[in-house]
Amino acid sequence: MQSNSTISAICTGHGGAIAVLRVSGNDSLKIVSKIFKPLKEGFSIDTDAKANHIYNGFIVDGENEIDRVVLSVYRAPHSYTGEDVVEISCHASSYIQKEILSLLLKNGAELAQRGEFTRRAFQNKKMDLSQAEAVADLIASKSKAEHDIAVNQMRGGITLEIKRLRDLLLKFTSLMELELDFSEEDVEFADRSQLRNILTETEQYLSRLVKSFKYGNAIKNGIPVAICGEPNAGKSTLLNALLNDERAIVSDIPGTTRDVLEDFLTIDGTLYRLIDTAGIRQTDDKIEKLGIDRAKNAISKAEVVLIVLNPAGDIFKQFSEIIPNEFPREKIIAVVNKSDIYDDVDISLLPKEVSVVKISAKQKTNLDELFSKVSTLGAMDFNQDEVILTNVRHFTIFSEALTAIERAENALNSGLSGEFVSQDIREALRAFAEITGDEITTDEVLGNIFKNFCIGK
Amino acid sequence: MQSNSTISAICTGHGGAIAVLRVSGNDSLKIVSKIFKPLKEGFSIDTDAKANHIYNGFIVDGENEIDRVVLSVYRAPHSYTGEDVVEISCHASSYIQKEILSLLLKNGAELAQRGEFTRRAFQNKKMDLSQAEAVADLIASKSKAEHDIAVNQMRGGITLEIKRLRDLLLKFTSLMELELDFSEEDVEFADRSQLRNILTETEQYLSRLVKSFKYGNAIKNGIPVAICGEPNAGKSTLLNALLNDERAIVSDIPGTTRDVLEDFLTIDGTLYRLIDTAGIRQTDDKIEKLGIDRAKNAISKAEVVLIVLNPAGDIFKQFSEIIPNEFPREKIIAVVNKSDIYDDVDISLLPKEVSVVKISAKQKTNLDELFSKVSTLGAMDFNQDEVILTNVRHFTIFSEALTAIERAENALNSGLSGEFVSQDIREALRAFAEITGDEITTDEVLGNIFKNFCIGK
Repeated sequence: MQSNSTISAICTGHGGAIAVLRVSGNDSLKIVSKIFKPLKEGFSIDTDAKANHIYNGFIVDGENEIDRVVLSVYRAPHSYTGEDVVEISCHASSYIQKEILSLLLKNGAELAQRGEFTRRAFQNKKMDLSQAEAVADLIASKSKAEHDIAVNQMRGGITLEIKRLRDLLLKFTSLMELELDFSEEDVEFADRSQLRNILTETEQYLSRLVKSFKYGNAIKNGIPVAICGEPNAGKSTLLNALLNDERAIVSDIPGTTRDVLEDFLTIDGTLYRLIDTAGIRQTDDKIEKLGIDRAKNAISKAEVVLIVLNPAGDIFKQFSEIIPNEFPREKIIAVVNKSDIYDDVDISLLPKEVSVVKISAKQKTNLDELFSKVSTLGAMDFNQDEVILTNVRHFTIFSEALTAIERAENALNSGLSGEFVSQDIREALRAFAEITGDEITTDEVLGNIFKNFCIGK
Repeated sequence: MQSNSTISAICTGHGGAIAVLRVSGNDSLKIVSKIFKPLKEGFSIDTDAKANHIYNGFIVDGENEIDRVVLSVYRAPHSYTGEDVVEISCHASSYIQKEILSLLLKNGAELAQRGEFTRRAFQNKKMDLSQAEAVADLIASKSKAEHDIAVNQMRGGITLEIKRLRDLLLKFTSLMELELDFSEEDVEFADRSQLRNILTETEQYLSRLVKSFKYGNAIKNGIPVAICGEPNAGKSTLLNALLNDERAIVSDIPGTTRDVLEDFLTIDGTLYRLIDTAGIRQTDDKIEKLGIDRAKNAISKAEVVLIVLNPAGDIFKQFSEIIPNEFPREKIIAVVNKSDIYDDVDISLLPKEVSVVKISAKQKTNLDELFSKVSTLGAMDFNQDEVILTNVRHFTIFSEALTAIERAENALNSGLSGEFVSQDIREALRAFAEITGDEITTDEVLGNIFKNFCIGK
């Protein structure tokens, strides 16, 4: 809709030595030429600039020189947005950046909205919608796993998956239409078992995708690992030992602080969210009980639970008082602490499925084994080479498609008319088109997607 | 010394959509080619890349694709550093940036030290030392005035000034040498009045430069404006009105908070530092007296003082109790507040040299006049087109040179031997060479200068 305008924004972050402003649209070169004095005399950026070339000069406001800059020129359609693009590399003072931006706006550019460059790339068919969404994920990615998923999606991972699903359903539809076309004559119906097989294959495909969201979500927000134990078991010492170990990369994620008692940790490229729960013990104190309820809630939502056991006391009693009965034993690591002092702790009373690691948080011994155990237990049943959903929008649409396919299967099995089945299939196909953006045109939907981008992308 | 190595660093700030890494040195292209897969098949960045061209492709770690990037290639000596330079524009996730940097280091690049790119630019004679220092000032500049001074210095403002000073002194030296050469014969001496004139001109020149530092320093750190007044005079309301007025741009300078009771304000491109002093009144309370002493100290150091007067009381009494006797009256603005309620306040008892502005801080009336008064009184006796010192190193060296010239003048006037005069002149010439870096070779001095840069510049 705004595709006639030329837009601009600062694309780099705060601070640093260099900043980049991007200008995109039909008038990019014309607008920049009004404020650019090239080093080479007689050269005009508007009429003489070649694609993929770099030009040196000054940004000027009339006679007043703002900065010595470098321009990178891209010509439509061979640019990020598919339009004529000029990128201005300047010195990173906030004064210079604001001044150049305001000169661009004064000379006819409009301030780019969040994600507007990528939105234009989508509208100019440089990428489909799922690829455009992956750009925001890529920029926000905090770990290797998250980054790899975003790269896969940007390269068209989901698009390919959808193509495969669509091919299956189109094959199904053509078989069905054959049946419908001839339904009033007495010819042989399309082979129902063949139809059923196609739907089963589609359903398996879809349900794997839908299930992958749990994993994708864990990758994005960190696989939740609860650390619990009695108040004096050594939880905090362990947490510090884990976070300060050089094998662990503690992520520096804005907005998370020690206050919320969550820390992020990367082991082998996977992000873990360590949740420090309140010390749990039998108590009659009402306030303390509230804290313990919260801790038990965190445990129930965790993917892995580390229970720190203090061998100075009865470790079996500690275990049974803290771990809820219903929590799966195979997702628990019993961390027997203070093993430098207590070297023959009896672990025979702990449930057999529980992994046991003897450490000393204070001496930092045997943390290796603990890291590797967390990594094994935290690993979800997904191959990172497969397509993994991390986006709620995709998850919702694929879930709807799955429901439609299940309905179609039921209709087919219960001998309902082919019309009903076809309707469900069309619904699923429409859902896929929404993901790649082939059928979305409303500004509202696009607005919702791109508002999560940063300005300058 | 490290000029054989190839260095690299992330040059852009935190956040944003795009990040830029810079690689500089003989092996830039070779190192980048090991981790770059161009879009165009068969192309090699190492052997085929042309100067000032842009190349599209992927940063890869073996088979693993890290990011789709754009490379900007510059060839020695036509680059910022004067060496072969490759700039890698990538998506701004911290993961991607760290990954690319670590790949560069793995493949032979060294991590750039603070300011090392600019240091190399200096060592490769792309700029002199005063210009290199201006780069850091430019990036840090918070206001138009500060920016303009840095741009002037980067364009060689100080270098030019020094050339002029040096020419004067060289002329002086050649005249002196003539005298020395023939001093044992009985020829006519060099014209002493001509020699004296040259020194006087040099001294005037230098002393203007040295004096400019006070102004330069104020521009860099904000011209200090103290706001004082009785506790209930309306100081805070005025401060808020000033800071929230749309004519004022409140600078967002890291490290300064409301806690220290200083706020920054830009009026007409000049930075002002508003110092909110404690309310001053007659008191016997010891602690309160300490606060008041501090306020009086702030007043004595301010360039402009705003005294907020409450017309509900005796404004002359307020004025004389608060303003120290020795503070120059012409640098004071008496802000008569609450003029919406008290419309005929008698100001005849205030000293004649004091500027009076009647306002209502609450109603925000007449702030225009106040802004313009601050701007007039805050203006220092310097033309911004002249060279202005902002750098302590330059100030110190020019001050030393000035002392040497004054010594030479005295020697000349008191008829001391030409040898003594020549020694002083040589000292001044050496000082100038230190500023442009023509005579500095010690790593220690260079290290001190460049350690204030950010990494990536």
